[in-house]
Amino acid sequence: MALLLDNQFKDLPPDKAIDTKLFLEAVSHIPSFFDCLGSNVFSVIKSDINGNITKIRAVYMKDPAKYVTLQDIVEAEREAHAAEWPKVGATLALMWLKRGLRFIQILLQSLADGERDENNPNLIRVNITRAYEQALKRYHGWIVQKIFHVALHAAPYKSNFLKALSKGEEVKEEDCLANVRQFLVNYTATVDAIYEMYTNLKAELDYTV
Amino acid sequence: MALLLDNQFKDLPPDKAIDTKLFLEAVSHIPSFFDCLGSNVFSVIKSDINGNITKIRAVYMKDPAKYVTLQDIVEAEREAHAAEWPKVGATLALMWLKRGLRFIQILLQSLADGERDENNPNLIRVNITRAYEQALKRYHGWIVQKIFHVALHAAPYKSNFLKALSKGEEVKEEDCLANVRQFLVNYTATVDAIYEMYTNLKAELDYTV
Ligand SMILES: CCCCCCCCCCCCC/C=C/[C@@H](O)[C@H](CO[C@@H]1O[C@H](CO)[C@H](O)[C@H](OS(=O)(=O)O)[C@H]1O)NC(=O)CCCCCCCCCCC
Ligand SMILES: CCCCCCCCCCCCC/C=C/[C@@H](O)[C@H](CO[C@@H]1O[C@H](CO)[C@H](O)[C@H](OS(=O)(=O)O)[C@H]1O)NC(=O)CCCCCCCCCCC
Repeated sequence: MALLLDNQFKDLPPDKAIDTKLFLEAVSHIPSFFDCLGSNVFSVIKSDINGNITKIRAVYMKDPAKYVTLQDIVEAEREAHAAEWPKVGATLALMWLKRGLRFIQILLQSLADGERDENNPNLIRVNITRAYEQALKRYHGWIVQKIFHVALHAAPYKSNFLKALSKGEEVKEEDCLANVRQFLVNYTATVDAIYEMYTNLKAELDYTV
Repeated sequence: MALLLDNQFKDLPPDKAIDTKLFLEAVSHIPSFFDCLGSNVFSVIKSDINGNITKIRAVYMKDPAKYVTLQDIVEAEREAHAAEWPKVGATLALMWLKRGLRFIQILLQSLADGERDENNPNLIRVNITRAYEQALKRYHGWIVQKIFHVALHAAPYKSNFLKALSKGEEVKEEDCLANVRQFLVNYTATVDAIYEMYTNLKAELDYTV
């Protein structure tokens, strides 16, 4: 579990503003999550998410003092690119990144909740499918949805997945899931706060790819 | 056809050595070829190929005087990384890049040769499938092969594809194909020379992804 627990997301302040620097530091460990899925089919997703993070970081680096919180960035872009916004810059990158983060959140939550296919208790397809349906499916056209269903066959066994999450150490399933629950506390609060911000700023789009 | 013809590959010298700088300049226009396919499903392939080019360029830039030809790079890496070579560095990047280049070559050649599905003369699936089978299929496991078949449904109509190759100008099919044939002369010679080099240096691998 080192992988996740070494890189806990921070507590949010009462106003739920997300510190850009701390957020970028925490999400920089997310792309390697997709290595835990064990197949290079998922390296495509890893690069997509990596691209989102790189884009947000590039904007932040231009003026760290101006972009203290994620909301500072989204609001500045709304001013600067009124015509294209929100389909532009770090606003677009964070719009997609949050969906990938939500996908991971729901997948881990579903495992932590013990949701399983009783006939195939060592498969995680049911957990991945739930995460996909809640976080991503509506933003994907039928071709990408079909590709998802094919890619599902590359998903690892639950035992291997939990082992990978634990950086290759053999840990008891219950110990690993206890760590996942711990990780999910601040992680979920952060993802929720980003979604709330997109709703409040009317920055959300629902086009499909 | 501006897109392709503006960026002709150069004549090869008699010894078929490929000048690294001229090669990098010519292939830098290749990723946008995948925009001609019209669907963002293909942006994934575009990034993969972009990654290959970036990796080769990064090695070249470290010492342009040392890496005058592509073969200079591959041979230097064979020395420097004996243990992992050829699954390493620019050698690996060029190994995959040449397969993508071959895919494009065969697709264009098949169109130039007038190969078509008589029942669906405005589809290019038969041309794409031929290119895939000759250039890539054997390097893909069954999941990626299945994803290919799904992605095929995102392929454009022939008329739209030729129009995109011609940078959006309406040109007669025969004029466009004449330009394609012209483009293919040096392009094919270059791709062939890279394949020959990989055979001669025993740098080719056949693992699947
Ligand atoms: C040789 C044969 C191959 C043929 C070709 C095959 C092609 C296969 C393509 C499959 C799609 C791969 C997933 C990537 C999808 C991406 O298209 C979307 C949108 O991506 C966004 O697009 C924006 C513009 O609209 C900006 O460019 C964003 O970039 S920006 O930073 O520039 O603003 C970018 O992230 N991201 C997504 O849907 C996010 C996906 C997140 C995580 C998903 C987890 C799923 C896990 C599944 C487990 C089973
Ligand atoms: C949300 C749901 C989504 C779920 C997830 C979906 C995932 C879909 C994945 C589909 C595969 C996309 C194509 C990419 C395949 C790539 O995996 C391969 C090997 O790629 C190579 O791998 C090496 C290591 O082994 C190095 O990293 C190379 O990188 S290095 O530079 O670092 O050395 C890298 O290029 N390239 C390829 O096979 C090359 C493909 C070239 C062009 C193909 C044209 C096909 C056109 C088809 C038209 C119909």
